[in-house]
Amino acid sequence: MDHTLGTFESSSSFAAALDSLRALDGAAAAEADAHQDRLTKPRGALGRLEELGSWLAGVAGCSPPPLPAPATVAVFAGDHGVLSEGVTPWPQEVTAQMVANFCAGGAAINVLAGAVGARVVVVDVGVATDLPGVATDLPGVATDPPGGRGAGRRPEMGATGPRLLHRRIRPGTANLVDEAAMTLEEAQRALDVGATVAADAVASGARCLVTGDMGIGNTTPSAALIAVRCGRLPAEITGRGTGIDDETLARKIGAVERAIGRASAAGELDTPLSTLASLGGLEIAALAGLVVGGAAARVPVVVDGVIALAALVMVEALAPAALPYVVAGHRSTEPAASAALAHLGLRPLLDLELRLGEGTGACLALPLLEAAARVLAEMATFDSAGVTEK
Amino acid sequence: MDHTLGTFESSSSFAAALDSLRALDGAAAAEADAHQDRLTKPRGALGRLEELGSWLAGVAGCSPPPLPAPATVAVFAGDHGVLSEGVTPWPQEVTAQMVANFCAGGAAINVLAGAVGARVVVVDVGVATDLPGVATDLPGVATDPPGGRGAGRRPEMGATGPRLLHRRIRPGTANLVDEAAMTLEEAQRALDVGATVAADAVASGARCLVTGDMGIGNTTPSAALIAVRCGRLPAEITGRGTGIDDETLARKIGAVERAIGRASAAGELDTPLSTLASLGGLEIAALAGLVVGGAAARVPVVVDGVIALAALVMVEALAPAALPYVVAGHRSTEPAASAALAHLGLRPLLDLELRLGEGTGACLALPLLEAAARVLAEMATFDSAGVTEK
Repeated sequence: MDHTLGTFESSSSFAAALDSLRALDGAAAAEADAHQDRLTKPRGALGRLEELGSWLAGVAGCSPPPLPAPATVAVFAGDHGVLSEGVTPWPQEVTAQMVANFCAGGAAINVLAGAVGARVVVVDVGVATDLPGVATDLPGVATDPPGGRGAGRRPEMGATGPRLLHRRIRPGTANLVDEAAMTLEEAQRALDVGATVAADAVASGARCLVTGDMGIGNTTPSAALIAVRCGRLPAEITGRGTGIDDETLARKIGAVERAIGRASAAGELDTPLSTLASLGGLEIAALAGLVVGGAAARVPVVVDGVIALAALVMVEALAPAALPYVVAGHRSTEPAASAALAHLGLRPLLDLELRLGEGTGACLALPLLEAAARVLAEMATFDSAGVTEK
Repeated sequence: MDHTLGTFESSSSFAAALDSLRALDGAAAAEADAHQDRLTKPRGALGRLEELGSWLAGVAGCSPPPLPAPATVAVFAGDHGVLSEGVTPWPQEVTAQMVANFCAGGAAINVLAGAVGARVVVVDVGVATDLPGVATDLPGVATDPPGGRGAGRRPEMGATGPRLLHRRIRPGTANLVDEAAMTLEEAQRALDVGATVAADAVASGARCLVTGDMGIGNTTPSAALIAVRCGRLPAEITGRGTGIDDETLARKIGAVERAIGRASAAGELDTPLSTLASLGGLEIAALAGLVVGGAAARVPVVVDGVIALAALVMVEALAPAALPYVVAGHRSTEPAASAALAHLGLRPLLDLELRLGEGTGACLALPLLEAAARVLAEMATFDSAGVTEK
């Protein structure tokens, strides 16, 4: 992937994260594996919970691993020019309205993060419309300037809800059916935003990162990226997103097909970065940056549904050394999600037929990570408990 | 099932629970369903979490439902005469040693219950050997007499670990290959113990019950009960339990086949109660009582793996009106578990390849129930948040 690294300025957060990526600590993971076998249970009887615990040891570089808590859920919000193709019945302003809902604490991600003690940070990386009441009206919502790293070090929770970071790169993408969704420089900036949010969250005490997203229409660019990266036909993997009808689905598949055809003809699929810029979304690029930033900081990164997985197939191309730090929180019902999971060899922890995004499915998986870490740290061994082995 | 009800004395806890069983509250569940559609998310986008929330409303009889917390995990311990058939390499005294481990807080169930704020109560309903150090040495462990209801109302946690209830009906079952595992009266008493533990836990503040078990060899009677009740061949559904080798598995399948043949010839499979007594275990019967007691108290009952599912197929026969109060916490790797889940039409919440028992898989699912209840209670509606519907 050296040919892509050259496109990142060495001063960027994403480039710095790339430089920091290291392999998982195999010795720590092996130590955890050995310890699992001494605990008062038949070998392997805790199944995937044991794998998860040993993986957390490899991520953190010690056994037992620290609790992966608190977690920070980073919800990146962006709009999509492809809405003009009629790919969804939801109006574009819902993205901004939902950002306001996040900041007021009323959305599903607020409830599910709150239930597990995770913090939510909302990042406007490309909303197209005004944020109703958010920028000035809500107490606890900071209005720090784009790129202000210093500001990012303040606590991420306001008095009444999650903090909103203003990192808008452009007001929504271009229509990827007609032209590249964004420029290479914009894609790089979005990657940097994500990497910076990751670094700031970890600096603020996060011990686990969760991917979140909001963007009306964003299952369309996700399907396009996953189709290209996983070698699948758009008709196979393009799904109903929020629950669209047959006619809308047909339009959506057509939009994905034409976008890929256009991008391919324009040579925009020649490098990972140009692919991301051509067919992606600002929040998707930022999520890719978050994943790489989290891996660089050696914290577990729990990915949500199809939007996060579109980011992840781009991480595979841009920074494959980051992938071992990722666990799939759940299996979304969106077919592109299953295609990406299979391509990446990831087995999701949950399969509850969710299709909401925001980071909700990943948040529901957080107690499993915590449980896996606690097993290694807290269970008695056969020796210590005086239990006879078979 | 009237022919079975007559065998329960009207003064028994189990009979009282049977009398109290009512249908789920359909109006509360429908109100929850309607409310789910007003929340700021596409309809149905939270998938099974929405079903779970509406089910909790039906269980509790109100919407939004109360948080299903704190939960109490009731771990029933019993031994099995079938060990003389060589069905497991673990020695019988491990059951008692693990009871001591539970009381000292060192087992997997202690760790996983603690992680989600659940209480553990340990019930010796049929351990065959002395409990090492437990009865007198451990602080916080009460030694109340069998059947002492008043004692059961004291707090269930001691100073340093879970409370142990001494409810030993007999020191392990008989070898079900040779004779009925227990008498009808013993089975009834075990059902009563379970129903009483449920009632006492709810009286002490539990808002959710979790089934737990410990008993070296108890996957053998579980396979026998599930084979009989689900009409499956022992060779199809008898599994490796804690991880036995091929030779031991062959002996285990043979034991299950001979036990069923013997019981059938003796007419012991003619009623649900005689089936339970013939092929069951003391902890399995107590678990059936717990499920019915929980349903009678209108709290959700989260069932664990194959031992709990053996109890549940007996609940289906003894008290089918209790089944709607049950959710399957996870899919154990034991084949009899999948057979019982399919027979009962239950879809487990988790599938993490666990095969430990103790209530561990069910405990891991508790945060999902809590999340489902919180969604209904805490999320904003489209109206309240000013979000446009499609």
